[in-house]
Amino acid sequence: MNKIKVGILGYGNLGQGVEMAVHQAEDMELVGVFSRRQPSQLTTESPTFSVDELEKMKDQIDVLILCGSSDKDLPKQGPYFAQYFNTVDSFDTHNDIPAYFNKVDKSAEDGGYVSVISSGWDPGLFSLNRLISEAILPAGETYTFWGPGKSQGHGAAVRQVEGVKDAVQYTIPSQKLLDEINQGHSIEYTSTTAHVREVFAVLEEDADPEQVEQMIVNMENYFKDYETKVCFISQEELDRDHGGVPHGGRVIRQGYTDESNQSLYEFRLNLDSNPEFTAAVNVACARAAYRMAEKGMVGAQTIFDIPPVLLSPKSAEELRRELL
Amino acid sequence: MNKIKVGILGYGNLGQGVEMAVHQAEDMELVGVFSRRQPSQLTTESPTFSVDELEKMKDQIDVLILCGSSDKDLPKQGPYFAQYFNTVDSFDTHNDIPAYFNKVDKSAEDGGYVSVISSGWDPGLFSLNRLISEAILPAGETYTFWGPGKSQGHGAAVRQVEGVKDAVQYTIPSQKLLDEINQGHSIEYTSTTAHVREVFAVLEEDADPEQVEQMIVNMENYFKDYETKVCFISQEELDRDHGGVPHGGRVIRQGYTDESNQSLYEFRLNLDSNPEFTAAVNVACARAAYRMAEKGMVGAQTIFDIPPVLLSPKSAEELRRELL
Repeated sequence: MNKIKVGILGYGNLGQGVEMAVHQAEDMELVGVFSRRQPSQLTTESPTFSVDELEKMKDQIDVLILCGSSDKDLPKQGPYFAQYFNTVDSFDTHNDIPAYFNKVDKSAEDGGYVSVISSGWDPGLFSLNRLISEAILPAGETYTFWGPGKSQGHGAAVRQVEGVKDAVQYTIPSQKLLDEINQGHSIEYTSTTAHVREVFAVLEEDADPEQVEQMIVNMENYFKDYETKVCFISQEELDRDHGGVPHGGRVIRQGYTDESNQSLYEFRLNLDSNPEFTAAVNVACARAAYRMAEKGMVGAQTIFDIPPVLLSPKSAEELRRELL
Repeated sequence: MNKIKVGILGYGNLGQGVEMAVHQAEDMELVGVFSRRQPSQLTTESPTFSVDELEKMKDQIDVLILCGSSDKDLPKQGPYFAQYFNTVDSFDTHNDIPAYFNKVDKSAEDGGYVSVISSGWDPGLFSLNRLISEAILPAGETYTFWGPGKSQGHGAAVRQVEGVKDAVQYTIPSQKLLDEINQGHSIEYTSTTAHVREVFAVLEEDADPEQVEQMIVNMENYFKDYETKVCFISQEELDRDHGGVPHGGRVIRQGYTDESNQSLYEFRLNLDSNPEFTAAVNVACARAAYRMAEKGMVGAQTIFDIPPVLLSPKSAEELRRELL
């Protein structure tokens, strides 16, 4: 069997996760890691290249996985590289997805390639479960709960507060609302009532804890209106106990097949490493992108468009026999 | 918009569930219920027909949903009607699926139609989640837990025991194993350790409870090797408290993105009505079958082959905007 030849662009947490996931995939091989940094500066046993080499190597790569950020890298890289490669990315700025899709779609169509955009878990698997559960249970409500997990954006916001030396933030789903759903009750869901925020922060030496706490809990868009707990700890504690990047959450649809019969549909993830799992989804989507291109498809695609059989290294026949 | 015209063959619990689900689908209309019984004997406000009318009405029906049983009806009906209609069925005899697929596939190809087989939740949504979770997390284990819910086959087996007038059986997943998984431990899973069986039985007047209980708990293939609780109740209690057909369960993959980082992937259903939910899945698959046929596809398909976008009445653009 010819292995699917994968390239990685960007070598942060996500790119490193993709590297691991490609090594776990028996039907794939890694051509190399491409970066804007000096290739020699990347700590990896994989071949490394400058991003400037990428276009020249286009015939050696079946799928390029874009591991840059949604705010700075993908808006340019996505549409650009879709002209030259089958690509996968995890563009996750929800509101900008339609416009991003259209741009990538045009490039991929022009180039004759397939680009899977917004892969990962949210957007990604959570979106898929929102779609499937709503299609099966048109009468009902869908709820998304995030966490328990570390929210990078909120941690960064706390680190901007005067008097804060370092900080992380955890998003915790409301156990009360989850219990109510499990008891079959309908709930009053808003993003603020469904989540609690926990901050672990290290103070600057001369900072006033009470003042810092007030600045955090009242921060507009991030913490105001949420139940927020702030806990001050030492840098040592922070480094020792809060270095991981766990995350997860659940999508729940409370649907009704008739007036009285409820169907509870729940999809849940609990991840020790958010970027590694996102990377693992991207690698399965890379397999699908390659196969869709082999079938002659072109243009931008999302998890909504992928026949699930294309995600697995197994044949359709094996899957029917073993997993159906 | 032209509505998708649906026919129902068979009017037991599943057929009645399909009727309800078609009424909930804004893009579908029910052409009629077809049965081997006298049409006048069916209690429904929908048009009713004898099964003998079916072939004559083939141009009036976009998708025929087969609601017969996997042991008696579908082995003949599936391959037969696949020649004349796009079909959906919930053939659920796991071991026979590959052979059944091949037969239906040949008929559907000959007739130029699409047949979605083995739709529902297991096989169906559970299978889909086994596939997706294994494709994303190749290193790990998948566990299926059934229940809490009523198992029709086990209830029927108990009702055969001498001295039993009436009975139902519930399958309960092992909370101990579920807790261990949630704590991140790996488990020793077998179908017998993962489930507890609860029997509620009504005794014949002269039956010896102890003797009946022993016959139940020692029944080969059904209860032997399982932890089984037997509870004798009155017919009134059974009728009052155990008339529903609840079921559900979960598919869990405990995967590893690297040696130490675990990803827990869980899909769970908790259903007040097993047949109504199965029916709701079949109706979403009927939409997909119709659309696949419109695209020129032919042959047998499973949930593994369906691009999820085809399950939803919404357009791809709406779905990207609202749910991605």
